[in-house]
Amino acid sequence: MYGLILAGGSGSRLWPLSRELYPKQLINLQDKESLLQATFERIANCMPEENIISMTGVKHFSNVKYQLSSICNNALVLSEPISKNTAPAIALAAKYIKDKFKTDPVILVVPSDHLITDTGVFAATVKEGEKIAQMGYIVTFGIKPTYPETGYGYINVTNTEILSGVKVNKFVEKPDEKLAEEYIADGHYYWNSGIFMFKASTLLDEVKKHSPEIANVLEEFDFSESNEIPFTIYDKMPSISIDYAVMEKSNKIALLKLESGWNDLGSWKSIYDVSEKDRDGNVKIGHVLDEGSKNSLIYSSSKLVATIGLENMVVVETEDAILACRADKTQDVKKIFETLKKQNDNTHLVHKTVYRPWGFYTVLAEGNGFLTKMIQVNPGQKLSVQSHNFRSEHWVVLEGTAKVILEGKELILSPGHSIDIPLKAIHSLQNPYKENVKVIEVQKGDPLIEEDIIRYEDMYGRV
Amino acid sequence: MYGLILAGGSGSRLWPLSRELYPKQLINLQDKESLLQATFERIANCMPEENIISMTGVKHFSNVKYQLSSICNNALVLSEPISKNTAPAIALAAKYIKDKFKTDPVILVVPSDHLITDTGVFAATVKEGEKIAQMGYIVTFGIKPTYPETGYGYINVTNTEILSGVKVNKFVEKPDEKLAEEYIADGHYYWNSGIFMFKASTLLDEVKKHSPEIANVLEEFDFSESNEIPFTIYDKMPSISIDYAVMEKSNKIALLKLESGWNDLGSWKSIYDVSEKDRDGNVKIGHVLDEGSKNSLIYSSSKLVATIGLENMVVVETEDAILACRADKTQDVKKIFETLKKQNDNTHLVHKTVYRPWGFYTVLAEGNGFLTKMIQVNPGQKLSVQSHNFRSEHWVVLEGTAKVILEGKELILSPGHSIDIPLKAIHSLQNPYKENVKVIEVQKGDPLIEEDIIRYEDMYGRV
Repeated sequence: MYGLILAGGSGSRLWPLSRELYPKQLINLQDKESLLQATFERIANCMPEENIISMTGVKHFSNVKYQLSSICNNALVLSEPISKNTAPAIALAAKYIKDKFKTDPVILVVPSDHLITDTGVFAATVKEGEKIAQMGYIVTFGIKPTYPETGYGYINVTNTEILSGVKVNKFVEKPDEKLAEEYIADGHYYWNSGIFMFKASTLLDEVKKHSPEIANVLEEFDFSESNEIPFTIYDKMPSISIDYAVMEKSNKIALLKLESGWNDLGSWKSIYDVSEKDRDGNVKIGHVLDEGSKNSLIYSSSKLVATIGLENMVVVETEDAILACRADKTQDVKKIFETLKKQNDNTHLVHKTVYRPWGFYTVLAEGNGFLTKMIQVNPGQKLSVQSHNFRSEHWVVLEGTAKVILEGKELILSPGHSIDIPLKAIHSLQNPYKENVKVIEVQKGDPLIEEDIIRYEDMYGRV
Repeated sequence: MYGLILAGGSGSRLWPLSRELYPKQLINLQDKESLLQATFERIANCMPEENIISMTGVKHFSNVKYQLSSICNNALVLSEPISKNTAPAIALAAKYIKDKFKTDPVILVVPSDHLITDTGVFAATVKEGEKIAQMGYIVTFGIKPTYPETGYGYINVTNTEILSGVKVNKFVEKPDEKLAEEYIADGHYYWNSGIFMFKASTLLDEVKKHSPEIANVLEEFDFSESNEIPFTIYDKMPSISIDYAVMEKSNKIALLKLESGWNDLGSWKSIYDVSEKDRDGNVKIGHVLDEGSKNSLIYSSSKLVATIGLENMVVVETEDAILACRADKTQDVKKIFETLKKQNDNTHLVHKTVYRPWGFYTVLAEGNGFLTKMIQVNPGQKLSVQSHNFRSEHWVVLEGTAKVILEGKELILSPGHSIDIPLKAIHSLQNPYKENVKVIEVQKGDPLIEEDIIRYEDMYGRV
């Protein structure tokens, strides 16, 4: 069996904890592994690690690669040059696996940002699904609805059994509350979890039949030599979901009930729902001090959050943005996100702390012609060999021992040591040792933008 | 006429905007002047500036002095070595004025952190009050109650008129709501504004009569040579309010109605009440993005605050602490403050940005043996000539031109220049020019505490 993890995402739903460049699947909600890492480990129970492909956008590539590399050697990550929704990504992965590995296996497709409570039940359901997929069906995992949710698509099933599954009648769009109640009463409706299984050839045949515009573009790809997905070809794909492109049109769809416990974590309200509560029904994470609140989610990532008398509220603190929201309005977080995006406000895009393959940096202060960062270089990591056309830099080592390459010379700097990096000088900051290196960087110049970087060598392939 | 501004305060009520070391009267609520500055200017309409004395604690002395010096040359600020409530402070000021200026004037006593809307009405009321004070009365300014407030003391008056005032029957403590309603219906009750007028000799006689324990300690002071209030003497004072010590016992009290518009700004709710609201009844200050909130106060001092669907809420963001509170629970902010104090959490004490007579600093990052600050030195200001026993420092100039004195040598540093200040080296950072100087300071050592400072010279008298 092969696996495909869909690791795109806009970062809007759990803003301000998620950002456009750091979406939900990359977040550590409670100092545990990220949802992406949990997803990888969950499906690695069902197949060899080397059969798992993660598909993400260029924007998230290095973060996805970095997170997976910490739990698996050589995780295979493919990078979409432009986002085209789920159908092109899934079809392309099926072709990739067929071409590259000269095989026609069953492929399990999973979103990277859902919560599954019982990994054992999940693995057992996948095993059942494999049998049905081998019979030529596209198997979709359905969740028995527990309340009339209006934010999900529903799947209507027939009474025709296929092994432990059942034949699908049709996919239906998000209903209003009344219709959702009717679906639940009817008993033949399931929530669409977005988890699928199929033989590569089954999917490709169905794509050819129902979405020839995708199938035609697929023909142009050749993965025999490279893993790259050329922009000029991929950009010809229509932007369309797998539901619209295939599921709603195919008559080869079977549904398998997934009873592992599932939540799409699609809003702060759903984070509250799946979290453990105290006696007052509160979920308090981080440095929180409360007086008499009830049924509220209070999340602090860096600073003290003091709350008094809240009821059914969500408060989320991050280094550069704070959200205070009624618990029944958390879908509207998307509106805030879209407004920020329209206003070119960077708080929709990145965190104040930006993660890189070598560590992270935080902008501490910005002003008239200067910018101050704290940089952490993780053990064994190096920043690229680089130069800047518009800025000089000054580094002060705070912790650890830094190796600095400056114009070909090598210097070893201890805490308290400092060095000037002149305009246009070729340099690199490196940490060959076992302790983290922390450095204060003061940039001076105009403009002071991340893009002012010329790379000469890079261990992460960013030259 | 002379004036006494009471400029103490605990900083608890408007936390997190106020702090123990930066109480309410020092805050700029909307980029205007502080309440202290407004108070000074209000009473400077009624008397010469040089007749105004501000009394504060040692903790607030340099901030009070600094704020007043920006609106008046040589503002007279007295510093209580220990806080003893209002009676000792007021009695001492009366004695100070009598001794120092060999005169027995009328003194106007005002809190430094109240809001007065109509300065003209206030000045006219003071003029009326002066006449009654000259007759030998202690004149207290009363506010006609507009609703049954349970957080204020009330003053019960007789029908006996004294010029435009009326004789007081008695001071009564904070009532419960039922009693407060009876007071309003009765019509002979006023709120106690904490504003008083009296001839120095009247007050001192009444103190002698009703609080001999204060009068006895007063005898030990001698202000003929110095403005200093010795700790060993002042510490003998009882800690008691002017209401308990004199007002409730004296039969020489008159009340003058103050109709200038008045608010004690004693909670975030009262800040909301006096602020201008938008169509939805919201007060939004700073970088706020809202979706559908109503009747809420949303205050951002540094970061983006996004709010959705709030009703009757107060959200206050500062650099290191966030408050989210139901509008009818804002008195409980005091409880949060007290808890933080008990936990030795510095967020009750100081802001992340700490104001000094020469400018301010902000701690940007702290870690294992290092601390990074951004320091701003205002034009014409200098930090003291100093040395440290436990830390070396490294400065990088970001903006402006800095003058650095290091071991007797003078250096002029421009943006991008940096310098090492070794352990125990005598040094000073100065700004003799017209632009702000901004510097990044990286401290290295153990312990890294503010108290590790030996001062040799200081233009603000802190040696």
